[in-house]
Amino acid sequence: MDNAERPLALTLGDPAGIGPDITLLAYAARRSAPVPPFVLIGDPSVLAERARALGLDIEIATVGEAAEAPFLFAETLPVLPVSVAGDVVAGHPDSAAAGAVQRSIERAVELVRAGTASAVVTNPISKAILIHAGFGFPGHTEFLAKLAGLDASDVVMMLAAPELKVVPVTIHIPLKEVMAALDEGRIVKTLEITARDLTRYFGVARPRIAVTGLNPHAGEDGTMGREEIDVIMPAIAAARRQGLDVTGPYSADTLFHAAARKTYDVAVAMFHDQALIPIKTLAFDLGVNVTLGLPFVRTSPDHGTAFALAGTGQASPRSLIEALRLADAMQARADAKS
Amino acid sequence: MDNAERPLALTLGDPAGIGPDITLLAYAARRSAPVPPFVLIGDPSVLAERARALGLDIEIATVGEAAEAPFLFAETLPVLPVSVAGDVVAGHPDSAAAGAVQRSIERAVELVRAGTASAVVTNPISKAILIHAGFGFPGHTEFLAKLAGLDASDVVMMLAAPELKVVPVTIHIPLKEVMAALDEGRIVKTLEITARDLTRYFGVARPRIAVTGLNPHAGEDGTMGREEIDVIMPAIAAARRQGLDVTGPYSADTLFHAAARKTYDVAVAMFHDQALIPIKTLAFDLGVNVTLGLPFVRTSPDHGTAFALAGTGQASPRSLIEALRLADAMQARADAKS
Repeated sequence: MDNAERPLALTLGDPAGIGPDITLLAYAARRSAPVPPFVLIGDPSVLAERARALGLDIEIATVGEAAEAPFLFAETLPVLPVSVAGDVVAGHPDSAAAGAVQRSIERAVELVRAGTASAVVTNPISKAILIHAGFGFPGHTEFLAKLAGLDASDVVMMLAAPELKVVPVTIHIPLKEVMAALDEGRIVKTLEITARDLTRYFGVARPRIAVTGLNPHAGEDGTMGREEIDVIMPAIAAARRQGLDVTGPYSADTLFHAAARKTYDVAVAMFHDQALIPIKTLAFDLGVNVTLGLPFVRTSPDHGTAFALAGTGQASPRSLIEALRLADAMQARADAKS
Repeated sequence: MDNAERPLALTLGDPAGIGPDITLLAYAARRSAPVPPFVLIGDPSVLAERARALGLDIEIATVGEAAEAPFLFAETLPVLPVSVAGDVVAGHPDSAAAGAVQRSIERAVELVRAGTASAVVTNPISKAILIHAGFGFPGHTEFLAKLAGLDASDVVMMLAAPELKVVPVTIHIPLKEVMAALDEGRIVKTLEITARDLTRYFGVARPRIAVTGLNPHAGEDGTMGREEIDVIMPAIAAARRQGLDVTGPYSADTLFHAAARKTYDVAVAMFHDQALIPIKTLAFDLGVNVTLGLPFVRTSPDHGTAFALAGTGQASPRSLIEALRLADAMQARADAKS
């Protein structure tokens, strides 16, 4: 099937968060800020109610098949129904919705794997609510890996913006646990997945990967920490032996200014703030969260549920718009090659 | 004495590094990029030799008193002589120069404390060479604190650029030592010194200080690290009880985009990369290193000796120019108040 005939599968996210808001706002802005056709997998009544709260006059079309969505998208917002249990109150998360949140993600993956949707784009979920409801996964990434039959260590988070692409090797763990979590195998695997998917989905034939050190000034020859010498340099050497274009470790503070960014296609950083500070400083609401290593494309806006903004009209659809566009561009690139 | 009659005291730095180069280039550019009058404290023959290597036609005037410098500065580069032992070869550091490097710093502080120079601006030194020569201090900051009769813990490093001012609580230590180095007293002292000197030297009556967390998302209520709850929040509370306008801890990744930067005058970060990544990403060669807490103003360019660039003409004087301007502006502000 042609990519143009397959919609993106957009999940509901937490219905009490800003997922419904930014979905509606992105749809409403489609003539000035075009997005590829998508089908929302969620509760049509939640969407209709939120549209009223936001004063948006958007016609919602309940569809039976994702394939209908592209034909309706110009005039109506297509929704593949998944009912939410309980009342949804914007800004007040309720674990009764957890089942629908989970089914929305499962359905999106089924559609993409069956070839009726092109890629998965996820709205933000609340980890606290899902864990409370027995979800059993710390977040989207781990659940998507499981649905794809993979281990969480097989997938990699990348933040992508026009100015910068960056991959943290460790992510949501306390800083004091970072040292023990870094080992040569994990860094090499991150480099392999990053290189392969930069080629597959971004068309970079041989991606130039710049790797940060862990310590200030990348340890300054071991005088400010040994992890560069003991772990990071061996990992870089191993990746280079496989033919990957990997350099470093570089001092993280001098790797992200405009001239430095021209020297690589993607930066791999050792921990959360090293990766997230530069991209959010440069591109606060243009950043997109991309999961690499899955057998399908998945993107998401680079922000959370923002419960306090739900239903207020103050949420920005900007990052979701970028996530929809990037998912489409990534899948189109992969289709063009295969 | 009027500030206009007192030059800035500029130290030599490592004579084999780019200190002589950027001093000459900053002087040469003074008509298009004005700098306040300074007196270089160093070896006139090193400067003359480097000017020849760079093809710069600059007349060097050896002076006996710093007070002569402002009257000569329009036409000649004033140098208060401190002889360097041994041959100076650009790009080849030699510990024989360490004595002169140290005397240059001591002399600059003497001049400022005697009131004949207005502020200290330092060219980069090589820690390795100085330690090899028995210097006994890990860097400028500790040596300047000692010359001022203070302990190293009494002074604070701030990086300042037009877009951002940021202070790291811990600096040049391995990442794994950061957790143990952070305690409530140290953070409170950093906040006190920062607030006081932002008022004294930058004219901010009641500085708004934003404090980062240590962990991803500032620990997310203790689920990703406890240091925010155990150490940082008590420090912020203690500073607020003193009347300081301190808020946080904030997730470091979302604290440095343009809209966030409007909400504070200075950010205090927990470790090197949290502070240095955003400022070097935003303002790579406009950043100035400022030491707060000293009884005089001290700034320096925010880069090292760059031995490989010495004598090549490729070093940029941009950060030194900004350091000279900022030192002058800080001292003028302090003079205007006293």
